[in-house]
Amino acid sequence: MPGMHGYRRARVLPLKQPRCAGVMFTDLTIDEAGLLGSLEELARINRQPDGSCRRVALTDADRSGRDLLVGWMHELDLGVHVDQIGNILGIYRGASAAKPIMIGSHIDTVSTGGWLDGAYGVIAGLEVIRTLKRHGMTPRCPLVVASFTNEEGCRFQPDMMGSLVYAGGLDLQAALRSEDRDGVVLGDELKRIGYAGEFRCGALVPQAYVELHIEQGPILHGEGIPLGAVETLQGISWQQITIHGTANHAGTTPMSARKDAAQAAAKVISFARELALRMRGQQLATVGSVHLDPGIINVVPRKAVLTLDLRNPLEAHLQQAESHVVDFLEALSVSEGVLIEKKQLARFSPVTFDPEIVKTIEMSARILGKPIRRMTSGAGHDAQMMARICPAAMIFVPSVGGVSHNPAEHTESEHLTLGANVLLRTVLALSEKRQPQ
Amino acid sequence: MPGMHGYRRARVLPLKQPRCAGVMFTDLTIDEAGLLGSLEELARINRQPDGSCRRVALTDADRSGRDLLVGWMHELDLGVHVDQIGNILGIYRGASAAKPIMIGSHIDTVSTGGWLDGAYGVIAGLEVIRTLKRHGMTPRCPLVVASFTNEEGCRFQPDMMGSLVYAGGLDLQAALRSEDRDGVVLGDELKRIGYAGEFRCGALVPQAYVELHIEQGPILHGEGIPLGAVETLQGISWQQITIHGTANHAGTTPMSARKDAAQAAAKVISFARELALRMRGQQLATVGSVHLDPGIINVVPRKAVLTLDLRNPLEAHLQQAESHVVDFLEALSVSEGVLIEKKQLARFSPVTFDPEIVKTIEMSARILGKPIRRMTSGAGHDAQMMARICPAAMIFVPSVGGVSHNPAEHTESEHLTLGANVLLRTVLALSEKRQPQ
Repeated sequence: MPGMHGYRRARVLPLKQPRCAGVMFTDLTIDEAGLLGSLEELARINRQPDGSCRRVALTDADRSGRDLLVGWMHELDLGVHVDQIGNILGIYRGASAAKPIMIGSHIDTVSTGGWLDGAYGVIAGLEVIRTLKRHGMTPRCPLVVASFTNEEGCRFQPDMMGSLVYAGGLDLQAALRSEDRDGVVLGDELKRIGYAGEFRCGALVPQAYVELHIEQGPILHGEGIPLGAVETLQGISWQQITIHGTANHAGTTPMSARKDAAQAAAKVISFARELALRMRGQQLATVGSVHLDPGIINVVPRKAVLTLDLRNPLEAHLQQAESHVVDFLEALSVSEGVLIEKKQLARFSPVTFDPEIVKTIEMSARILGKPIRRMTSGAGHDAQMMARICPAAMIFVPSVGGVSHNPAEHTESEHLTLGANVLLRTVLALSEKRQPQ
Repeated sequence: MPGMHGYRRARVLPLKQPRCAGVMFTDLTIDEAGLLGSLEELARINRQPDGSCRRVALTDADRSGRDLLVGWMHELDLGVHVDQIGNILGIYRGASAAKPIMIGSHIDTVSTGGWLDGAYGVIAGLEVIRTLKRHGMTPRCPLVVASFTNEEGCRFQPDMMGSLVYAGGLDLQAALRSEDRDGVVLGDELKRIGYAGEFRCGALVPQAYVELHIEQGPILHGEGIPLGAVETLQGISWQQITIHGTANHAGTTPMSARKDAAQAAAKVISFARELALRMRGQQLATVGSVHLDPGIINVVPRKAVLTLDLRNPLEAHLQQAESHVVDFLEALSVSEGVLIEKKQLARFSPVTFDPEIVKTIEMSARILGKPIRRMTSGAGHDAQMMARICPAAMIFVPSVGGVSHNPAEHTESEHLTLGANVLLRTVLALSEKRQPQ
């Protein structure tokens, strides 16, 4: 495709300019051992007997991960800043004071996390800088590696909190006041682990944001394609559903006289799957958490608290799913004789990423002679928040078996290295587009 | 009914023998203020903001309740013994060394308990003795008031543990090794709260055991009958069901590719109710507890642990229900692609109580001119364990609205006093049947 080659010449050849003197383009390659070694070192923190990585946001394990990351940033002589919501920014100075290019992701995990979700994007960012330094290369603009606070949102809601606050989508003070299930306040935890920084959230607005991540789904692995250029990201609706029944003795209360919150909860769980199947293809629905009160073997539950995670790449369809849920809960309340409350925990519309960055990612893959496909992200990512304030896009690599949020989460070393090399080339190509600060 | 009157004369008139000289039979009445006052004092320990009584077995609150009870026993000059499983026995000496009559129940509660379940039977036992003492009456045989350890079984399984061990149905050491959900060992907790006694379990075998309890069901209240003579008790089967699915990302895993433990759990919950309704009338089925792992909003659950409580007054029907559950879980395992384990937590066959004691209870009610009906107990009670080693039966009073294991649990004062008066007369009538020790 001539057009592609023209693009390649225009954007990538400048890397051979004098400031990169003596460096052959083909030499610019991520050190696989360094990348994997750092990933493994981070994964060892609070690793569970079943192999899970457990660095839930703002726990001691998260602090240990942050300390390790900050240590690596200092080794690379980056300017390290911690902002008011605890995001960590490592700045590599460029040849000009142009707006920086930001490479970001997160290092917090779910409680049964894998070794790659989040960590891969941050560590690959450091490896990009390490590679440039090894070759004595100074990019045309500053590069920033960002590790955002509480992307997973499994302890404090909403998820993607650090990038959301950074992008101005959530008030800093409101975020700091968030409480976990035990009533522990996020701001207090941030101070406790030593990451309540003073850098102003959003102070650095990049000219472009690129996030490298494992797919966490089965598409790339299933199709045998090693790379994805993520052009859209599906919308997310998180709801908490609370069902109020009546507690009673399990041995004396006739079935017909019960207002059993667990029975109503079971119907919600079953409905979630039926809804997704009925809406076909793109609609996903998950009940990941159920708490019964009092939760005792011989007591008919008086209360059930469930979470519902709905996702769809089309805003209209996501709204349709939400509306079906409302209708269902109304009917359920009547049929089961229970009271039902619904609370929105998070709501993000689908995102369209920057077409120019997506093209640059594709081009970088093609330079390396590797197949790449355009795709939609099923998961939420910090990139969707950064897309509010700057052009952004993502690079995906395959997840073996599509497995994620699971100790079995894995990506072949070859693909991890390839993804980082595409990130390196994408960032360099983008840096050629100098923008005045 | 002449036969009834004949029975009355034969059993109750001996109370007017010389050792009761000067006491008119009609004077022998429980002091309502004393009964209610003691119930309220016990209920105040660790009372929750919603009014629940929370004295879960072997917690600090249980200790406080025990301390209060032992104090009352000492005030009554009872001989107090704590046995090896922590059962508390208060002995009121009789005129002879005949085998004692035991009045028993428990003072532990579920975590959302009411003020009467268990406590009523124990405190009424003390009031029986207080009434006799007030009238200077010595019964023909010793009376023992027993408060059994861990009747509710919501922290340590099985339930009715203290009476089960006392009756030789569970090995003492096995019971002491029981662990709660956090791995805390029952024997350690018993020592910690100061109730690891040395009295041998089962050392005192009574000639009769009578338990006064609230019905915890809707029958007496619904029919407007103030008393029940419990002649049978339904069988109980408690099972723990563990479902092993696969954890995965809620935003990237197609519905068809999931092995979602929560979906399988929902089917078990729905099946439980369908089974009970299909088997009609007497079959009960309850899922009171569900735990999802990891239990996070955006992770497809890899594991679900549920409890299932099945009850039926007929052993054959209970076995049939258990067998349906086995078949259902086998089919579910295939249809959902999950592994399912089942563990029996407790299993008690239906019990038939002693017909003579049941008749004595009926007679005592009729002497007081109050209606009484024969009935089946829906709940498990210590009486069913004691029935293994001696003649036993129970007296029920109405639960308002059939509500129990709930802060709204209530019985009218009039009925509480009536139940205690029937207990008093039943015990005195039984005591006339002297048995050599």
